[in-house]
Amino acid sequence: MSEFDELKNEIRAFADARDWEQFHTPKNLSMAIAGEAGELVSEFQWLTAEQSMRSNMSPEKLKDVELEIADVAIYLIRLADILDIDVAEVVRKKIAINESRF
Amino acid sequence: MSEFDELKNEIRAFADARDWEQFHTPKNLSMAIAGEAGELVSEFQWLTAEQSMRSNMSPEKLKDVELEIADVAIYLIRLADILDIDVAEVVRKKIAINESRF
Amino acid sequence: MSEFDELKNEIRAFADARDWEQFHTPKNLSMAIAGEAGELVSEFQWLTAEQSMRSNMSPEKLKDVELEIADVAIYLIRLADILDIDVAEVVRKKIAINESRF
Amino acid sequence: MSEFDELKNEIRAFADARDWEQFHTPKNLSMAIAGEAGELVSEFQWLTAEQSMRSNMSPEKLKDVELEIADVAIYLIRLADILDIDVAEVVRKKIAINESRF
Repeated sequence: MSEFDELKNEIRAFADARDWEQFHTPKNLSMAIAGEAGELVSEFQWLTAEQSMRSNMSPEKLKDVELEIADVAIYLIRLADILDIDVAEVVRKKIAINESRF
Repeated sequence: MSEFDELKNEIRAFADARDWEQFHTPKNLSMAIAGEAGELVSEFQWLTAEQSMRSNMSPEKLKDVELEIADVAIYLIRLADILDIDVAEVVRKKIAINESRF
Repeated sequence: MSEFDELKNEIRAFADARDWEQFHTPKNLSMAIAGEAGELVSEFQWLTAEQSMRSNMSPEKLKDVELEIADVAIYLIRLADILDIDVAEVVRKKIAINESRF
Repeated sequence: MSEFDELKNEIRAFADARDWEQFHTPKNLSMAIAGEAGELVSEFQWLTAEQSMRSNMSPEKLKDVELEIADVAIYLIRLADILDIDVAEVVRKKIAINESRF
């Protein structure tokens, strides 16, 4: 099983155990992704480009950033699951489109 | 090699070939994720929860949504690469935190 | 009449003339704000801090930024209208909270 | 003086008193707007359209939403100030464009 499928199944099991599927409509999940992306961008908003590098982050800051990246990833994988979309496949499709564009 | 690592390498090769690493600071990539998450949420903004389901989407709409999901995923994988963060690992760490919380 | 109330009324008239009130739920409008904020942030994502200054922007870029600021403002004023919230009042309330905090 | 200009001046005085102008580049402020818009959208993410109406919100929820609207407004007014953009003017310009479009 691919790593994406494993994570997808773990996230699905987590949601099912809490009876959250009712809340996990594509519309709502797109909002959750935007919300978490907002938290991620706010981690960097007052930093310079240099300060945003790993080597210049405190361990606490890095941990916060890691967890924000995880939050975006979790809702993104969940949205793809609900919509029956294969993330790796669409990423490759989009890279191919970008290859022909740039 | 895991699927995440494969995608990470393809995205890195794409950026390197265009000499884009200079633009791909963590700060800038967090902005790109927020921008793409904004495009994703705007796909759903005027739809009801029901209309946002796959079975109620036109093939064109589904394709647009797929490509927006891909865009968020591409920049998220790229940010994790630049920060040397293992996405699957932090997702599992965050699920464990959520397990103890909810 | 205050400037906010004038704009509020113009935006309301625009929406009413198109029978869009049905789409303008607080939930949907919060999504529209996030979507437009995503477009605004993407205007700046590959620029340095210096390049993002007005004096370093082309007239075309400045016009794009102006219209993105307008889009966020329009949906924000519309959301406040639908929720019967006075924007100027809550801005002053929040500044007072911030004064006591920082 | 218009209400926008009054708020602009209060926000500017607040920032100046804390020597924050150095952080308030257009790039950084666009990130702050995206971050606050993310917090605003997350207030509504698990609510139905009906639950998102003022009449169905608790007083605590309404207060949270008010303060998130204020946060987006504050950074938007600040960004417009730094870029020397008149918010009311660009809103009217954008409404006129929309009038001709829809």
